[in-house]
Amino acid sequence: MQSRSNRQWLLVSRPETMFSEHDFKWTEAPVPDLKPGELLVRNLWISCDPTQLGWMKMDTYVPKVPLGDVMRAIAVGQVVESHNDSFTAGELVSGMLGWQDYLVTSGGGPNPLLRVPPGVRPSLALSLFGITGLSAYFGVVDIGNVRAGETFVVSSGAGAVGSIAGQIAKIRGARVIGIAGGPLKCEWLVEEAKFDEAIDYRSEKVGPRLSELCPKGIDVYFDNVGGEILDEVLARINLHARIVLCGGISGYAGREAHPLSNYRMLTQRRGRMEGFIILDYAPRFAEAIPVLAGWLGEGRLIQKEDVMVGLENAPKALARVFKGENFGKQLLKVADPPLPAPN
Amino acid sequence: MQSRSNRQWLLVSRPETMFSEHDFKWTEAPVPDLKPGELLVRNLWISCDPTQLGWMKMDTYVPKVPLGDVMRAIAVGQVVESHNDSFTAGELVSGMLGWQDYLVTSGGGPNPLLRVPPGVRPSLALSLFGITGLSAYFGVVDIGNVRAGETFVVSSGAGAVGSIAGQIAKIRGARVIGIAGGPLKCEWLVEEAKFDEAIDYRSEKVGPRLSELCPKGIDVYFDNVGGEILDEVLARINLHARIVLCGGISGYAGREAHPLSNYRMLTQRRGRMEGFIILDYAPRFAEAIPVLAGWLGEGRLIQKEDVMVGLENAPKALARVFKGENFGKQLLKVADPPLPAPN
Repeated sequence: MQSRSNRQWLLVSRPETMFSEHDFKWTEAPVPDLKPGELLVRNLWISCDPTQLGWMKMDTYVPKVPLGDVMRAIAVGQVVESHNDSFTAGELVSGMLGWQDYLVTSGGGPNPLLRVPPGVRPSLALSLFGITGLSAYFGVVDIGNVRAGETFVVSSGAGAVGSIAGQIAKIRGARVIGIAGGPLKCEWLVEEAKFDEAIDYRSEKVGPRLSELCPKGIDVYFDNVGGEILDEVLARINLHARIVLCGGISGYAGREAHPLSNYRMLTQRRGRMEGFIILDYAPRFAEAIPVLAGWLGEGRLIQKEDVMVGLENAPKALARVFKGENFGKQLLKVADPPLPAPN
Repeated sequence: MQSRSNRQWLLVSRPETMFSEHDFKWTEAPVPDLKPGELLVRNLWISCDPTQLGWMKMDTYVPKVPLGDVMRAIAVGQVVESHNDSFTAGELVSGMLGWQDYLVTSGGGPNPLLRVPPGVRPSLALSLFGITGLSAYFGVVDIGNVRAGETFVVSSGAGAVGSIAGQIAKIRGARVIGIAGGPLKCEWLVEEAKFDEAIDYRSEKVGPRLSELCPKGIDVYFDNVGGEILDEVLARINLHARIVLCGGISGYAGREAHPLSNYRMLTQRRGRMEGFIILDYAPRFAEAIPVLAGWLGEGRLIQKEDVMVGLENAPKALARVFKGENFGKQLLKVADPPLPAPN
């Protein structure tokens, strides 16, 4: 077997607040020969997710990334060589491939590889059918349980999760208001994603605009940012409102988290504020994916992707998510599939 | 009919933060003659509840008390004269009798009178079988859904709601930690109410003590105070923890509410924080009362009452609740029943 070189980003220090490129080391290592049962995966597309900052910093719902290890990342790759009966060269797989060109794996263990369903674009396996689309689905349908006629507000409305969440709420018959940064994103929310209204948090005062746009109050809030916006929403919730806490970028980044002053509205309005992590829903992914695929096929749902190219740009691509620079699901394209798909 | 004099406390100004006796006016008025369909109720026992401060200040789940009106209060009284076929003189009833000696009412309308079940002590109709006992029941059983083996923490543990909540959690098999102010209350919690542990928030640091006493983390927190203690609990919640928001005295009083910094733990631990108001459970009261009565009869549950005497002391009795001076359910005894019970 021809010796391949594997470019990698190793995590070498733990960020205290926000990460910088200095927390990583760019290195190159030979790809080891495969042992029986192992397979070699070529990384193609890497998912850039806020939760990765947590993985750098501390044990959370998963252990932190050990210092000196390849930075953990969800990605889609192609099996390029297989000594494992379960996988065939040419197949597309998704899993924790990390910030590197190649992964040698048994395909199982705590981070198993999943097969990308035939016909699904690799990038969609990371967005609509990946953790962001599924977070939107279960957050809206299960935790938020939004119903026709209700008012639904989502922050990071033009982000990977928020844009899908708002569209799902719209499909369920809610009036949907998205909060996003900048006129381009707000225009997209209304024109393309068909939200009812958009608030530009960079140029508008979120609280008063929420009062104007939600004259009947807010029934469901899908929170992607926490902080001040969550507080403004709490001040305006309806009886039996549901607040879906999905991530919370500002807190991940360790900035002086804005503490909540209006949480007592949960008592007065008998509201519920509930956090969730999409991995808890793994047993129900199979229920969501056909529904999302159906809406996509019917044109009722669009997935916007924001693509950067080149493994060397991995820290930069991830940083975009924290700066609010991404417009739709942030992805990093690493390579085209080197092999044709298997028949 | 002999003309009776009705002593009353009128609400004459709205407190900005905490109320004072100057927000009320002590007055005396004649009791009007009864019209057809009306009945006259003699007030006997008045319930002192934190929610009354909200009634003085603003429209909440009920409209605020109009200035110049008798201060609203839940109470138990005796029907002393009835021109209404549904009520007989001598019967005990509960309802919004207010801070006064007598109420003339049709018995119906938005604040209907309820009959106190035969054999139930009047004070118990306001405590265990009133809104405080019922709040404890539905908060623990329904919102908290505490299960055997779980760790349950309750603030205002020696208060009207907290003491019952902890005992119900104990009956359901949880390990129960109560937070209360002062050694007497803490001793009572462990010795009489049979809590597993008690924390004296006046002399102990609540956060470190919670860490010591809840080495496996906190599964259910029954919150009666909000603020700093809620934040300390949030820092220590378990996966799928439930935070039951029942009232929130420190906020009612309008003191600089301690804003929540640790609410992001709800995401990390997939927790749920939910407010409720006992009036929402009115259709299910009939389900809870026999259960509570059963536990009381079996000696598995004790109700501590803290009684002040005399209508002239109504503001003072209510103030005790906000100062944490009450030990058990705060009641104000106004009179003994003037009539024998009907046969």
